[in-house]
Amino acid sequence: MTPNQPGQIHRLPIAGVKNLIAVGSGKGGVGKTTIAVNLAVALASLGYKTGLMDADVYGPNVPLMMGINRTPMAFGERIQPLEQYGVRLMSMGFLNPGDKPLVWRGPMLHSVIQQFLRGVDWGDLDYLIIDLPPGTGDVQLSLIQTAPITGAIVVTTPSDVSLEDARKAVSMFRQVRVPVLGIVENMSYLDCPHCHQRVDVFSYGGGRRTADEMQVPFLAELPLDPQVRIGGDTGSPIALRKGEGEPFLELARSTVERTADAARQEGPEIEIGE
Amino acid sequence: MTPNQPGQIHRLPIAGVKNLIAVGSGKGGVGKTTIAVNLAVALASLGYKTGLMDADVYGPNVPLMMGINRTPMAFGERIQPLEQYGVRLMSMGFLNPGDKPLVWRGPMLHSVIQQFLRGVDWGDLDYLIIDLPPGTGDVQLSLIQTAPITGAIVVTTPSDVSLEDARKAVSMFRQVRVPVLGIVENMSYLDCPHCHQRVDVFSYGGGRRTADEMQVPFLAELPLDPQVRIGGDTGSPIALRKGEGEPFLELARSTVERTADAARQEGPEIEIGE
Repeated sequence: MTPNQPGQIHRLPIAGVKNLIAVGSGKGGVGKTTIAVNLAVALASLGYKTGLMDADVYGPNVPLMMGINRTPMAFGERIQPLEQYGVRLMSMGFLNPGDKPLVWRGPMLHSVIQQFLRGVDWGDLDYLIIDLPPGTGDVQLSLIQTAPITGAIVVTTPSDVSLEDARKAVSMFRQVRVPVLGIVENMSYLDCPHCHQRVDVFSYGGGRRTADEMQVPFLAELPLDPQVRIGGDTGSPIALRKGEGEPFLELARSTVERTADAARQEGPEIEIGE
Repeated sequence: MTPNQPGQIHRLPIAGVKNLIAVGSGKGGVGKTTIAVNLAVALASLGYKTGLMDADVYGPNVPLMMGINRTPMAFGERIQPLEQYGVRLMSMGFLNPGDKPLVWRGPMLHSVIQQFLRGVDWGDLDYLIIDLPPGTGDVQLSLIQTAPITGAIVVTTPSDVSLEDARKAVSMFRQVRVPVLGIVENMSYLDCPHCHQRVDVFSYGGGRRTADEMQVPFLAELPLDPQVRIGGDTGSPIALRKGEGEPFLELARSTVERTADAARQEGPEIEIGE
């Protein structure tokens, strides 16, 4: 019932990848993929070499949100990532396009994720963002136990139901000793496009309160902005836009800082070539 | 990579349970549990004997939304469901309260769900609603392969990202020959509480369009109403309220009709005692 102990974990580094950041959530539909996509695009636009791995193999929304869907090439045994908006990408959506659901059993899933992590030619990256599947299950556990994750971001909405699951996600990362870089409160509030009054659709402020209670940093609060959703639905992330993208650039800057803190606490980095 | 063929499936009836309705979604956070909870409460208030099984063992939100959390009793080998608002309930949240995440491996999970289905003393029920975990994965497949499900409801928001995953959910149910009772479009639009103009936060109308395309019934469109969320966060489902609960009573009535249609198509019902 308990995960393997930290002492048993083999977290082999990924050659060339300096920082691995997992974006998770206890609950689905809180905007985890939206945050992961826009964070990756923002990091790239700040000049960092960035990759985005879509580990949500059952509901891979990264291709739609990044506006790209082609079959990746393989050179020898290495899969070549696609590239869009300066971000190197890998997603199960590239390999299984269309509406057919993947109904794989656990063990097969684990090997796909390992393949994505270590069989893809990511090259030199400052940041590899992993969009985890929502929840605190089997796949998440496997991944964070075997990947050399520098730190994790937990996304939540301010609703109590989402916060309840966000606390579970923070606990999961702690159990396997992955530093939590911080909590992001997404869909914090809506600015009515008609009267410009504020609507607290999913309540407000619970992300910061939960971060305080659990003694993890509070990274950002992001509004429920229909433009963010439209950016996702049309494959043109809002982080690309001047002005409107600013909250995500700000999130990217905080992430860079927190990651540096986390990396320092983990001790000196050891680079291992292939 | 493909599920077992229908011929191999052993879907033993559950003694005393007339109709088993699964509420699923391709994507999390679309309000699946909110729909399941309010549908169950509405069916009970229409006079049907109703149960609600929370199969989302990783993120069990039913206890919070139903405002009840006690450890269930066992008589002999049978677990006794809790009861709230006239609905018999079982959830992993009752057995594992608090913030500790469950990080179980697949096989253990399957046995818990079987236990919930067949080890709980549901008694005589007109409707047992199953709140599936979001997605189209392992657990979902296992459950819908082994449970005698009368029909499934697929919940989506109108955003393209959610619709993409809803199509996968419909395909999954079809693959294992579970009739889809219909698609529910949740968070269809927001009525601004200040200016009462309509805001299409997550777009609008994609649920009906998708239902038409996939030739499944369209069951309901439900607004993004902060009162629905507050009902969930405070354990007092909106379906209990006169007037405001009407859309859910309407959904319950449509569900009763569609279920009768689906049961007729499946041929005569065979009741097997214990």
